This record gives sequence, C-alpha cells and structure tokens, in this order.
Amino acid sequence: MNIRMICRVLGLIFLILAGLLLLPLLTGLLYGEKVYNYLFTAALSGALGFILTRFKPRQSSFFAREGFVIVGLGWLLLSLIGALPFVLSGSIPSYIDALFETVSGFTTTGASILTDFDAVSRADMFWRLFTHWIGGMGVLVFVMAVLPMSGEHSMHIMRAEVPGPTVGKLVPRTRRTAFILYLIYIGMTLAQTLLLLLGGMDFYDALLHSFATAGTGGFSTRAASIGSFNSPYIEMVIAVFMLLFGVNFNLYFLLFLGRVRDALKSEELRWYGCIVAGATLLITLGITGRYGFLTALRHAFFNVATIISTTGFGTEDFVLWPEFCKWVLVLLMFTGACAGSTGGGLKVSRVAILCKTALLELRQTVRPRTVTRIQLDGRRVDDRTVRAVHVFFLFYMLLLLLFTLLISFDGYDIATSFTAVLSCLSNIGPGMGLVGPTGSFSIFSDGSKLLLSLAMLIGRLEIYPVLVLFSVRTWKS
Amino acid sequence: MNIRMICRVLGLIFLILAGLLLLPLLTGLLYGEKVYNYLFTAALSGALGFILTRFKPRQSSFFAREGFVIVGLGWLLLSLIGALPFVLSGSIPSYIDALFETVSGFTTTGASILTDFDAVSRADMFWRLFTHWIGGMGVLVFVMAVLPMSGEHSMHIMRAEVPGPTVGKLVPRTRRTAFILYLIYIGMTLAQTLLLLLGGMDFYDALLHSFATAGTGGFSTRAASIGSFNSPYIEMVIAVFMLLFGVNFNLYFLLFLGRVRDALKSEELRWYGCIVAGATLLITLGITGRYGFLTALRHAFFNVATIISTTGFGTEDFVLWPEFCKWVLVLLMFTGACAGSTGGGLKVSRVAILCKTALLELRQTVRPRTVTRIQLDGRRVDDRTVRAVHVFFLFYMLLLLLFTLLISFDGYDIATSFTAVLSCLSNIGPGMGLVGPTGSFSIFSDGSKLLLSLAMLIGRLEIYPVLVLFSVRTWKS
Repeated sequence: MNIRMICRVLGLIFLILAGLLLLPLLTGLLYGEKVYNYLFTAALSGALGFILTRFKPRQSSFFAREGFVIVGLGWLLLSLIGALPFVLSGSIPSYIDALFETVSGFTTTGASILTDFDAVSRADMFWRLFTHWIGGMGVLVFVMAVLPMSGEHSMHIMRAEVPGPTVGKLVPRTRRTAFILYLIYIGMTLAQTLLLLLGGMDFYDALLHSFATAGTGGFSTRAASIGSFNSPYIEMVIAVFMLLFGVNFNLYFLLFLGRVRDALKSEELRWYGCIVAGATLLITLGITGRYGFLTALRHAFFNVATIISTTGFGTEDFVLWPEFCKWVLVLLMFTGACAGSTGGGLKVSRVAILCKTALLELRQTVRPRTVTRIQLDGRRVDDRTVRAVHVFFLFYMLLLLLFTLLISFDGYDIATSFTAVLSCLSNIGPGMGLVGPTGSFSIFSDGSKLLLSLAMLIGRLEIYPVLVLFSVRTWKS
Repeated sequence: MNIRMICRVLGLIFLILAGLLLLPLLTGLLYGEKVYNYLFTAALSGALGFILTRFKPRQSSFFAREGFVIVGLGWLLLSLIGALPFVLSGSIPSYIDALFETVSGFTTTGASILTDFDAVSRADMFWRLFTHWIGGMGVLVFVMAVLPMSGEHSMHIMRAEVPGPTVGKLVPRTRRTAFILYLIYIGMTLAQTLLLLLGGMDFYDALLHSFATAGTGGFSTRAASIGSFNSPYIEMVIAVFMLLFGVNFNLYFLLFLGRVRDALKSEELRWYGCIVAGATLLITLGITGRYGFLTALRHAFFNVATIISTTGFGTEDFVLWPEFCKWVLVLLMFTGACAGSTGGGLKVSRVAILCKTALLELRQTVRPRTVTRIQLDGRRVDDRTVRAVHVFFLFYMLLLLLFTLLISFDGYDIATSFTAVLSCLSNIGPGMGLVGPTGSFSIFSDGSKLLLSLAMLIGRLEIYPVLVLFSVRTWKS
C-alpha cells in the first residue's frame, strides 16, 4: 500500500474542499449571516490539506487497490468535514444527522433528516444543495482535471469513481477530456438556471435547484420540494433536466465534438427512453382517475423522471397512489439512470445486459446448439464485462437484503425499511411508506442513519471502493 | 420436437394420476362419503392416459427441450385434472380456486385459498394433502422408476424436474436408485406418522400431516394449522421432520449405503445448519419478551424450520412479531432448503455459491493477482455451474419483481404483494402482510391467482421448464 501517495491525493482533496467552502461563506456574507462555521471548516480543511500534501511519494507505483482506498477514504473524509458547518451553525444540531445530510448531499442521494427548513441559514442551504453539484461530477475527476498526474494512475481512480460498466473509450483519460466534461456540466447547470429564472423563480432558488438537478441529488430549499412552486412550467423544466443529467455524459461529449449520429445511436439511450415512456404511461393510467388525464400525465412524467434519474425531487405524495404505480416506481429505483451520468442505481446499461442474459439463456435452453452473444450498441459485450455485471447485481441484492435486516431493528414496516435502503443504495432520496416524498429519514435511530449513510456511499461509489476500504485484507501488508 | 414421445410420456403420467386418485376414492368410501368426483376424474385421467400411450414414438431422439416440455406440460396437466375433484364435490366451487389449491399442492407450496375448512370432505382433504406428497418427490422421477427408459432420456427429464444445481453423481440415473430414494421417502413419512401417533394425533391427521411435511408442502387439515393441536411435542416432531425433508436426499442415499462419513461432510448441510441456528437465535432474542425464553425458542425454531424448509405450517402469527424477525423470515424465504430435497427457494447450495462469489470478488479486487476459485465440498465448482447459478439468481429476481408488479394491480400493499410472490416462487405458503399464517390467498383476484399458480410452477420446476413451455420459439419447427 502506497500510503504516502494516498496521503498526498487526500491532501489535494482537502485543499479543494477548503476552496469550495468559500462559496457558502460568500453566500452567507451576501445575506448578512454569521459565517464563522465556514471560516473554521475551510481553515481546518486547508490546514489538513497543507499538511497532507507535504507527503512526497517515494515511488509512484499505484494499483487498483490504492485507487479504491483513495476514493473510499476521500469521500468519507469529505463528508466528515463537510458536515461540520451544519453543526457549528446549529442548523442541524446533531453531528450524526449532519453527517447523514452531508453524505446524502455528496452522494447525490437527497434523503433528508431535515424537518425544520426555516432553521437553516441561507449559507447552510447553499452548502447543502451545493454538495449535490460537487458530488455529481466527482471530486476526484476534478482533482485529475486540475492536477498533473500520469494517465495510468488516474485511470485507477476513474474506474473507482465514475459509475457504470462501460468505462470505455470516452472516459476522461486526459485533463482535456475532464475539462470538456466539466464545461458541459457547468453549461447545462447554467442553462437550467436561466430557464428556471424565466419561470419566475428567484436567482437563489433557481441556482440551487439547478445544482441539485445537475447532481441528480434531490435536496430542495423548501420542505414541500418542487411542489411548493406550484408551477407546471418549472416542474417540466426540472423533469427534462433531471432526465438529461441521467444520460451518459459521453453522449454530450460526442455532441460537443459534433458527432451527432454517434451520440444518438446509443442503445442505452433507447432503453432509457423506452423505460421512461412505458413507466409514465402505466402510472398515468393509474392516476388519471385521481387527477384527470393531463395533470396525471404531468405528475407521472415528473415522478418517473425524478426516480429513474435518481434525483428525488417531489411534487406529489406518490405513497398515496395505487399500489401498482408505486411498484413501477420501486422498479425504477432498481434501474436508475444511465452509466456515466450523475445518477445512481444499477444503471440502465447493466439492466439491459441482465435482461439480454436472461433472454439469451432461455433461447439457448430451447435450442442448445445456437450460440449467440450479448450485444450492446451492435458490438459484442465481452464475457468479463457480463460477469462483472452479474457480480455487481449480486452484490447489490445481497447488500439490499442485508442492510434491510440491519435497519429493520428500528421496527419500521417492511415497505419503509426495504425502500429506505433501496433508495439510499440507488442514491434516490425518497422511498415508500414512512420515507415517501412527505416523510423524513429523521425517524431512524442514529445507528440506522450511519448504516444508511454507508449504503449511500456504497451506492455512489458502486460498491467496491467502500467494501475494499472496510476490508481487513486491504490493510494487511 | 418429438411430439409422439411427449404424448406417450404424458399418457403415462395420466395413468399414474388415475391410479393415485384411487386413494382419496378409498378414503371417501371408508368415511361413507360420495366419491363420484374421484370416480369421474380417475376415469377421465385413465382414458386420456390410455389414448396418449397409444402413440408409439417413431424415433427415440430426445433432447433437453423435450425434457423441459414434458415436465412443464406434465405438471400443468396434472394440476388441471387434479383440481376437478374439488369442483365436482363442491368443496371448492370455483375452478380457478381449485386450480390454485391443486397447483399449490403439487408444487408443495401450501398457499391456500381455503377459508371454510368444514366444507371440505374427508376424501377431498386427503387428496389436498396427498398432492404435497406426490409433488415432493416428483411424478416424473416416479415414471422413471417404474418404466423402462434409456438413461440418457431420463436424465433430460431429471434435470428439468429435480431441484438444485448439483445434479451430480447421485441423481437417480437408474431405476434402482429411484426406487431406493422412494423407499427412503416412504420410510421417513411412515416414521413421522408413527411419532405423531405417539403424540396423540389420530391416524388420519398424522398420516396427512406427514404427507404435507414430506413434500415440504404446508397444507393442514385445520384452519389454525399445527397451532390447533396445541402440543409442543407435535410441533417439535414436525419441525425436525420439516428440516430433515429439507436436506439433500443424496445424503440419505449415502447413509442408506452406509457411507456415513461421506454423508456428514456435506458443506451444504453445514451451511443449512448454521443458517437454521443463526436465524433461530436471532428470532428467539426478538420474541423472548413476548413469550418468555423457552416458548420463544420453540416458536422461533418451528417457524425457522417451516420457512427455510419451505413447508409453511403455522403455529404463531409471525406477522405480529418485531420487524427484524419478519425480515429474517423473508431472507429465509429467499434461501429455501437444500438442493435435491423436496423444498423450494433458491436452495442453500446456490446461496453458498453466491456468497462465495461475492467474497472472492472482493478478495480479488483487493489483491488482483491472487487467483482463487470457488470451492464446495472441497472441490472446485466449475465456471459453468457458477454461471448457471448467477443466471438462476437473475431469473429469480427478475421474475419476483415482474410478478409483484402484475399482482400489485389488485391493490394490496407492497409487503403483501411482494411476499405473496416470493412465497409462491419459493414454494413456501405463507408470506407477510395479508397473506401471513392467519391470512389467505383468497383475497386475490382470479387473474392474480392464475399468475401466482404460474409462479408456483416456475418455482417448483426451477424456472426453465415453464418458461420453455411458454416460449414461442419452442413451438417453431
């Protein structure tokens, strides 16, 4: 284990965090609030960063294991420090609550323990929603974009931080690619902010909700979330942008390079579109009696978008909808968004590979002599990838069942416990039962909050980094 | 597709069914009941059998596909005909209800739509519980035991009918092996009957409950199931036999041959024992406050045994237990019993392989250069088997999620719909929510009852035969 190298990269992360903390500090100053909490946290983070970056790695050897440890530890430390401002300002008095909220922010989950929104200062609310934006694109991708590092080393970090099975050609191998991806990310965020301003939102709300949409996070400045704006225009803008941020960023990269045809022929995009359309249709049918067709379509579309993109904004309390509508949403909680997007979940491409495996297997059982292969985007998916997808699915299900068992000691009903874990593991936000759009994760015990925070980290980092971090074997020499 | 061959084997199944129907007929006569329904059904089944066995196969070529079709169609037709007596006697007036009950019987599920137990004649109750006994060992294994057929052909049927991934050396390849397995099955059933008689049960109840235990079915002659006998002795006898019938029959075969050491070193058996012990302990802790330690231990042991063996007898309404106890039981619903037993579910050996895959994968992520293999019983599990287990798990989960969606149109809560499907797919019987030990599947619509029947067949035949049967490709020449 190359400890010095790990310390150095973690130091860089702290320095970046110190820089990012200046933004809520400025916001606080702008609104005339006390900002000691941000001053202190930024200073602490800066000092830690200064000390850790003093470590000069003796050797540059760097393996997958180090990559996983850096990513796992990096996200954990970010959250531990990032939670301080909430406690210091008193917005969220309990440190465990603040940690849950911060992990939920950085992992772009959006599950919240907040009940008293008025007690939160403007600066803290900014920081709360800003964490989504930071977490969406990945702090370490940023590290690589700004700092010189050899391509091979950064690949180990990329693999650990960027979601999805198709870490292929277009992943930011070079600083240039990373810069372009950040440009797209910033551009889309600003475009959404502008469209929300046109819908009559004030600048603060528009910017913050664009941050939360871009990271497919789901925190809102208001307790009633997007529903409180009571504007179909705003809902539709946000719904469309949620879906857009759930698309593989490689597609935007291709569009940026002018390769429109290549971008649009993505098979994952077609699956994503079909799932959204199918689910919207099904749910519309289920709730037309309740709202009338057009409003039903609007609510169905918004809530399908919010769940499949794993954002988690709310407009209506879908816990009150017919059971099959709820189950459609639960299925979308499994699916999640596209690989290489800011969204969570199993990812559409993995679901596609899993469905194709099942169909193929059936075909081969009927006609054992036909040899067919799983294809995606017209190309064969190699066996290693297929196996990795199966193992990922296995981990996902095992962790879901195990965490539900651990959470169930709190005594909430199966639907609540199960969907709370699923929602955290898929980085969505709301679940069903008591953790629906109008519910709150504040009902859980401190132990469960820590476990759910762990589930969010596991989900965001796609399982391995967190498990590797907590594996005894990793730390044995 | 060798249609003539399929017809001939199906004909043999009908002849056997006709023979088996004579037993409830005799029971009815013994108790002075009208038995026209059994006369008619036996005659119908016999006539169909007579006609179909007239088909002489022109060629004996016989592939996996034919094996799957025979098993799938065989079980479907058995259930369709086996349901007739209930409707004809008026015990279960609706044919769909009767079909659900019969499928539940043959698949050894034990999920019941029966609410008025007094309306069922003695003969019908005999037939209801006897179907468990028939289904437990597999009708087609019986066909092979009685009829001359080449080993290769019967292997295709065996693979389709006998549960578990380790269809290995000891599967009844010859008539002699099948005979011995049946002897063990009958011997154990009689031993249990005797022990229940000693506990004060009358002969009718003792025999019928032994049938239901042997098949790990779970139907009872009484609405309150085993709880109605109010005897810790009877509960313990049944609990132990449920666990015994959940053990791989290959072990009994080895014991029969005197190879005690070989039998006891089975790794699956150790996993099974550990899971039972662990779950019993956890649940005991959870319900000690409710019952006191000893009674809690008894209830925990019985209900762990009834769920993991996928029997489904009831003593206490575990729906009222603490949530984590319920989730432990839900986890056992996934696990199921050992491969090669009469139980359902994923099977312990598959769960073991899945857990080992996950651990191994993690180990390999931490240290990529270590090459380790999955072992079971000290021998390496080949990649094909591992892959088959993964695909089976995938199918299981996909079907579970899909069927829950379809069932959810009935409008029952998530816990009810989800566990109803899980319970049927794992051939258990009770679920949680409204389908708990004191609940009934009669709440579902006819459509859902048919879907749940399908889920039971899919679970009993381990997915492929039923899916192959309903695949368009199978019937294309």
